[in-house]
Formats: sequence, structure tokens, C-alpha cells
Amino acid sequence: MPDLVLREDTDHVARLVLNSPANYNALSLEMIDALSESFRAIEEDDNIRAVILTATGKAFSAGHDLRQMQEARHDEDAGRRAYERLFGRCSGMMQMLPALPQPVIAEVQGIATAAGCQLVASCDLAVAAEDVRFGVNGVNIGLFCSTPMVALTRVVPPKAAFEMLTTGEFILADRACELGLVNRVVPADQLTATTMEMARLIASKLPAAIRMGKRAFHEQLRLGLAAAYEGAGSTMCENMMLPDTNEGINAFLEKRKPDWN
Amino acid sequence: MPDLVLREDTDHVARLVLNSPANYNALSLEMIDALSESFRAIEEDDNIRAVILTATGKAFSAGHDLRQMQEARHDEDAGRRAYERLFGRCSGMMQMLPALPQPVIAEVQGIATAAGCQLVASCDLAVAAEDVRFGVNGVNIGLFCSTPMVALTRVVPPKAAFEMLTTGEFILADRACELGLVNRVVPADQLTATTMEMARLIASKLPAAIRMGKRAFHEQLRLGLAAAYEGAGSTMCENMMLPDTNEGINAFLEKRKPDWN
Amino acid sequence: MPDLVLREDTDHVARLVLNSPANYNALSLEMIDALSESFRAIEEDDNIRAVILTATGKAFSAGHDLRQMQEARHDEDAGRRAYERLFGRCSGMMQMLPALPQPVIAEVQGIATAAGCQLVASCDLAVAAEDVRFGVNGVNIGLFCSTPMVALTRVVPPKAAFEMLTTGEFILADRACELGLVNRVVPADQLTATTMEMARLIASKLPAAIRMGKRAFHEQLRLGLAAAYEGAGSTMCENMMLPDTNEGINAFLEKRKPDWN
Repeated sequence: MPDLVLREDTDHVARLVLNSPANYNALSLEMIDALSESFRAIEEDDNIRAVILTATGKAFSAGHDLRQMQEARHDEDAGRRAYERLFGRCSGMMQMLPALPQPVIAEVQGIATAAGCQLVASCDLAVAAEDVRFGVNGVNIGLFCSTPMVALTRVVPPKAAFEMLTTGEFILADRACELGLVNRVVPADQLTATTMEMARLIASKLPAAIRMGKRAFHEQLRLGLAAAYEGAGSTMCENMMLPDTNEGINAFLEKRKPDWN
Repeated sequence: MPDLVLREDTDHVARLVLNSPANYNALSLEMIDALSESFRAIEEDDNIRAVILTATGKAFSAGHDLRQMQEARHDEDAGRRAYERLFGRCSGMMQMLPALPQPVIAEVQGIATAAGCQLVASCDLAVAAEDVRFGVNGVNIGLFCSTPMVALTRVVPPKAAFEMLTTGEFILADRACELGLVNRVVPADQLTATTMEMARLIASKLPAAIRMGKRAFHEQLRLGLAAAYEGAGSTMCENMMLPDTNEGINAFLEKRKPDWN
Repeated sequence: MPDLVLREDTDHVARLVLNSPANYNALSLEMIDALSESFRAIEEDDNIRAVILTATGKAFSAGHDLRQMQEARHDEDAGRRAYERLFGRCSGMMQMLPALPQPVIAEVQGIATAAGCQLVASCDLAVAAEDVRFGVNGVNIGLFCSTPMVALTRVVPPKAAFEMLTTGEFILADRACELGLVNRVVPADQLTATTMEMARLIASKLPAAIRMGKRAFHEQLRLGLAAAYEGAGSTMCENMMLPDTNEGINAFLEKRKPDWN
């Protein structure tokens, strides 16, 4: 059986590839665990400075594995404990993305629906091919996308998110870009080149500064202004104390490239 | 004296119509109470699955009833208690909209100003005719739109909201759509058809899933990520345990229509 | 030595001008203190009803004064205390902008980077010339823009903000307008006329209503709905009790101009 998640490292960029095209990269328990393991490995890999999350086949991901979910209905409790475990583990995996020290870019082809759309929303950045369709359309089969909604409503304005969730209708890549779900839309044949360029650009920065910054970014998002500034000010001080930042500023003032290791 | 709020049910959709065109559907105490009563009746009506809120005449609503408000200045306390009651009751009515179990679509014609604009912002969804003007222009008469601001700043980005509030200038429907105040803009002669189509689409979904989802949507909006996922995960489990959701998923897997009652 | 911040009053509008073009209006400790003093003076000046914050030279502001910051590395503690003081004082100055009773409009020419971009984000309103570039590009020299991020993420959607912060890339004025960082983009030769017109329009409103409204705006932004409405309702009542608001409403009902002192 092939690996559910492939990893290809190029220089300091890790590409994680959802590799279950036969079921549209469904987020089965096994896929969720494979993603979580991949994230843990990257978290501890100081060589990696940026991550791309992408997929093989016609879909980025079509969300949860419905066949697997229906099987749990044969359990003594009609599946309740299995569903608690599934959604708990899936939400945990999704929360690993902002918690990873490296920025994560979703590279989206085909369609991204339900928990697949949640995966895109949970990445720090996202690039989509022109023909991609996004949806949180569980409502069409009687299962409102409540957990995808958490990630979606943190990047998309409320009335637009509510429409997607209750009508089950898809939006195209350009609309997803207007709404803030993705950063850029490119022709399909430029998709990988675009995310690799973005990842390499981020990987060319001082890694310690990116790590501090990403952590600070997510920590301050929902705080009041004073509390947010207190934390961010501490981060700025720590950042200034790095020898490489001293070198970076000196290089800028001397109009030369920084000599970072 | 005709009813201030008319109600017309079509299948599972309730249309509530502000019916005081002579004073531009001003939100008098009587109109606020009539709306609150209508919402309470709909809340308990299991037959209703989606609500449209619209109006007769040249304006959707021009906001508070200024003549009525000025009359209270003759009270012993120069109106203070009357104003406390008015704004308290109006804010209570506005908060009934996200609390209603059914999604509410604003169908907006003419103009929507001050508390009339707040009413649009407070609905889950909104569709406007092309020539509609929106404003929170109380500042022009010396009364800053502080309560409309609460609803407005929860759907419109802060600098745009601040501009509307302090300059008192109107924006047109297309700009309101860009800003997230409305979902769609259509020609005036397609307005009712569009909201009815949207309402019917929502009414065609599993009602219990829509109810769970709408409640979860509003509950999680301002929570931290972990707390939001905890609540949303519980909602997903409850949703999975519904027999109709079991049927909905089976129908999808078997490529047939679900047999929902 | 010329003043770092110039002030020119026209009627009820104060123009504050960053006046250190030689170092691109760097936010040195001295500049931060000069701005703070200017804000304090305006806060107590009942004659001023709107503020424009602008700059001389090729840049609005290029952010912190890197040469000054590098000098502190010779301190016994390698600069740590100096940086704590700098970022604390700068964050304090930035927070004075929403706390000022008068609305503040950023009038932006040239470039606004790092803490210069933060200054724009911290103003209530902003107008930019067509060719302005915005960036939070400290990451390019190894210093992630953590404090500018606080202001930026409160006006710009998260994925767009994250991209700017981690890639260090600039955005142009039109994109800044789409993202909510600025309200309007105009040709450079209409920049001052536009901000002056906006400031005069705001200054023509009832000052007490604008002051109450601005305070209420910032107080309610991150509150839950019920708490936000409670505060806003109190503000509405206070606003109604002003004799000038009584006059404003009467004038409107009688179709005449209000007689405000």
C-alpha cells in the first residue's frame, strides 16, 4: 500500500503530497494520522523553512471519508465515540498548521470541499489553479460543515461564509481570492512554479525571524490591542538580540548581502 | 390601521414585510415590537426553514422614528428612560436575528440607513437591488450611529465602517457587496426572485442540520481556535447521530436522492 | 534643528507633518516622542475636530531608525533595555491614535514600510496616492515586523497580511485599498485636496457626537454582541441627551440647517 502522504524536500522546502487520488484524498483517520505525523516530523526538522501542502489527482481533497464514517454506525453506541475521536483528531491536525514553526502554503488543484476546504483555510498561505472550486457543502447531504466553518470564518467575511455553508454552493478560485481564502490564482500549469517560488522566497529569509514571527502572528490575532502589543514588543526585542539580525541590519546599512549561516 | 409587519408563507419560506411606507419603514417602538413578535412566532414554527426580511415602498428602512423620539423629550427626565428603553428593545430585536434557528435573508430595495442599515447587517444573508444606497448617517443630524455600528463592524472592514460612520456618506449596492454588507446585487426586477431562490435552496436542506449549523456559526465566531473547535466538534457529532443524516450520506454514496421527511 | 513634526491648523483641522525627509521620516525615539507630544496637544485642543497625518519628502515613513537601533548594541546589555524602551514607546504612540478623540486620516505619499505602514494601519482612515507602495518588509533584514503586524492584522485579512510579513514584498495602493489598509486611492496631485475635504466634512459634524462615536467604535470592536450593544446603547442615550442633538434632529425634521455653536 503506497504512502498516504508523500514528502519531497528541495533545499529547505518540504512538499507534502496527499496521495490517495482514488478517493479524492479523503481525510480518513489514516490520512489524518499520516498528515499529523508529517507535520510532527517537519516541526522538528530545522532544515525545513517552508512547507507546501498539495495533492495528487483530480481533487485537492473532498473532505472526510464518508464510507469509513458510515461503518462506525455498526458500533454499539451507533458511532458516537468514533465520531468524537474522528473530529477531535481532525481538529487537532488542523490546529497543527498554525502551530508549525514553518509557514505552510496550500497548493490547490481540482476541488477542495468540506474538510478539504478547511485544510486550505488552515494553511498560512494558499495558491489555487484558475479552475479550482471550493465548497463547504456537507449541508447537501445533511451534515453541516461545522468544523470546516471554524477555519473558514477566520479567513472569509461572515456573510460570504454563511452563504457557502447554508447553500452548499461552490465558489471559483477568483472569488476565493477576493474573499481571502487564497492569496493568488494562477493558470494550472504555473501552480507548482508559483508555490515553489513563494516557498523559496520565504526560505531565503532568516529562519529564526520567520519562526518568531509566525508564532507571534497567530498568538496576537484575537487579543485586545494592548495585550497584542505587549507580546509583539517582546518578540521584537528577542528578534533584535539575534546575532544574525545584527548582521542583517548592518548588511542593509552597508548596502551588501547579509552573511547568514 | 394596517399591520406594521406582514407575513406571507410560501412552502417553508416566511416573507416578513415592513409595511409602513409612509414613514420609510421607520423603526418606531411599535415596529420594533411587531418585528420581535414576528421573530418569536417564526422561532417556534417548525414549518419555516428560511426567512426573507423585506419592505414596501421607496425605502427598506430609514432607521429610528425621529418624531417619536423627539416627543419623549417632554418627559420629566427629558427622555432618558424612554431612550434607554428604545435602544435596549431595538438592540434586543437585532440580536434575535442571529439567534433565530432559521437563516434570515435581507431583501433590500431603495435605501437602508442608520438602524435600517443595521437591520441588513444583522441578517445572516442579504441581497440588494442595484440602485440601493446604504448609510449610517445619523452623524449628519448630530446622532452618531453607535448601535448600528455594532452590527456594521461585524461584517464590514474597520476603516470602511469608520468612514461611513464619521462622514455620513452613502455607499451604493456594489460597494456594499465588495465590503461584505450584502452577498449579491441584482437588477431590481430580479430581487424577489433571487431571494426566493436562495431561501428555497436553503429550505431544501435538512432543517435540523441548518439549525445546528446556524447556532454553531454564531457561537464560534469570536472564540479562540481551540474553544471554537471543541464546540464545533460536538455539533458535528450531534449532526452525525441524526437518522436523516445517516440517510443523507447513504443516499450520496448510492448516488440517489435522500428520503427525508 | 528643524521640528521633527510640523503642525498646521486650518479652521478645525490639524495637519501633522513628519518632517525628517533626509532619513525617510524614520521613527527614531525623537520622532516617536515628537508624535506623542503632538497627539497629546491635539487631544486637549477642543478647537480641533479632525487630524491629518502626513509627511514631507519621498517617503511617508520607512519605519524604525536602524542606525539609532544599532548604536544601542554598544550598551552593557547589548541593547536589550533600549529595545524594550523603544518598542514600548512606539507601541504606546501607535495606540494613542485610536484613543485620540478626533478622527485621524493618514495622507500617504511615496512609501510606507514597517512601522511606517503600521502608522497608516493605526489611523482611523487613510488616503494614498496612486503610486504609493506599502510593505512590512523587516523580514528582509532579519527583523520580522511583529509590532507593525498588530496594527496590520486588525485592518487586513489574515492570509494577505501573512504574505506581506513573510515574503517582505510590497503592495501597491490599489491593492492596499482592496485589502482595507486605505480607504481611497487618488492621483498624487489630488492627495491633499482629498484628505482636506474628508477632514472638513468630518469637522462639519457635531464634535461631541464624533468624539462619543469614535470612542464607542474602538471600545466595541472585539466584544461579544451583547456586551457591544450594551455599551453602544449607553452611548446612544448620552448622545440623545445633548442639546445640540435635540437641535440637529429638530432641524432635520423641519428641513433646515442645524444651529450648532
